[in-house]
Amino acid sequence: MTPSTVRVPIGRIDGRVTRWEEDLLAVEAPLEIRVGPRSLSVTMRTPGHDFELAAGFLLAEDIIGSASDILEIANADPNVVVVALSPNALIKASALQRGFLMTSACGICGKVSLESLATNRCPVLPPSELKIDAGAIHRLPHRLRARQDIFESTGGLHAAALFNAQGELQCLREDVGRHNAVDKLVGHALLSFGTPLRNSVMLVSGRASFELVQKASMAGVPLLAAVGAPSSLAVSEAERCGLTLIGFLRNGSFNVYGGTGCIGGLEEPQ
Amino acid sequence: MTPSTVRVPIGRIDGRVTRWEEDLLAVEAPLEIRVGPRSLSVTMRTPGHDFELAAGFLLAEDIIGSASDILEIANADPNVVVVALSPNALIKASALQRGFLMTSACGICGKVSLESLATNRCPVLPPSELKIDAGAIHRLPHRLRARQDIFESTGGLHAAALFNAQGELQCLREDVGRHNAVDKLVGHALLSFGTPLRNSVMLVSGRASFELVQKASMAGVPLLAAVGAPSSLAVSEAERCGLTLIGFLRNGSFNVYGGTGCIGGLEEPQ
Repeated sequence: MTPSTVRVPIGRIDGRVTRWEEDLLAVEAPLEIRVGPRSLSVTMRTPGHDFELAAGFLLAEDIIGSASDILEIANADPNVVVVALSPNALIKASALQRGFLMTSACGICGKVSLESLATNRCPVLPPSELKIDAGAIHRLPHRLRARQDIFESTGGLHAAALFNAQGELQCLREDVGRHNAVDKLVGHALLSFGTPLRNSVMLVSGRASFELVQKASMAGVPLLAAVGAPSSLAVSEAERCGLTLIGFLRNGSFNVYGGTGCIGGLEEPQ
Repeated sequence: MTPSTVRVPIGRIDGRVTRWEEDLLAVEAPLEIRVGPRSLSVTMRTPGHDFELAAGFLLAEDIIGSASDILEIANADPNVVVVALSPNALIKASALQRGFLMTSACGICGKVSLESLATNRCPVLPPSELKIDAGAIHRLPHRLRARQDIFESTGGLHAAALFNAQGELQCLREDVGRHNAVDKLVGHALLSFGTPLRNSVMLVSGRASFELVQKASMAGVPLLAAVGAPSSLAVSEAERCGLTLIGFLRNGSFNVYGGTGCIGGLEEPQ
């Protein structure tokens, strides 16, 4: 397997003083995702968990709905993943490709017109039974950071993680692309215990964009929390989908957009 | 014009105490870029400087080589920019579209196969005459941050800026997407004083990925500095293109990958 980090020579400059050392970098390499013989997308990802990435990507793009839509996932070479779909899912994939030419690992950037974007709206989530205590939410970023192995060594990766209602970490994935980290995470869930993830909280290490809200809601996650800021469209899409969105989750406080939804243990100001 | 920020109601939770307030968010909205009647790409961007974004994107994708390849840029609606190309550039655009179906504002994610990716390699830069003092480089992030207007109010934007060899800021652009911030910056340069930017330093507020190195080298920038980490492919592509790449530029130190190139005033350890 291609490694996730690589050692390179660097000049480390403190003030004006240059020392020649070695440093670890996060690997970024293109992954081509094929459905049968057809190329669906190329994404720049950190190698590792590539089958999960492909599965999560296909779920986010609404090409598959469950693990049973996948017959087999295999490598054609280390940077090419080939997914064999069940007959029903295969028909859907063909229709989608006719409809918007091709899809993209960014969720958005590959689409060629505003019309094709509008047709790809996520379904509204069913009312959630998840309730997670505010105190547990405050602890999530620390728990994520403590398990970010590759980030520790390279400083260069986004992370996405799933937690249960008690705030216990279920799974964590890292990648140079934040959309890939989420696809790997969702793909892992899909292949190992199934979606929708109605009782899970998703935490991302960076900002919350439209595409991350889309990916979370396609996976059925009722609560998405981000260490960084959300965008306007992330907030409006979360409201539309019925997803509770948290931003700026750090230093003992956070913002919630559009309603406290799944958050328990809140108090009014004295 | 669509505003760059929007005011939304939020719940701000400190510990368990919830206060209902208003907060500013960075706007994220889709922009469709058309060449003549044909949709080339949709990117999620922060409104503002959309013509520059389109121009910078076309340069990065090698569809245009200079401002003279553009006859006119206009809005079909607030979220659709239509570029009219000169006859020569138009032929190139058509050929490119046949070649890799469509391009993407991410540089990578929209491309459908590894083969199409390999054909889109940036040219090697000519030897650079730029020399910027290490002391001036250390001051760049502070100068960038001091001018990041929208980030100050929303915490939600990437920034990219151009500086001259004395470390003086020439131009700064912000966007929810870091590739868009760079496209806007390069587009501004292209439309106002022309490319290649052989005497400029580009600074980005986040990490340095492959696509940002590609965009910088397509614009002829000899030095790209990032506040965050570079990826492995950013480093190898910078070496191939002859671009000096700096990472982790913060707190009085930085790393240089593949040679100190354009950096002046360095000293050996005592």
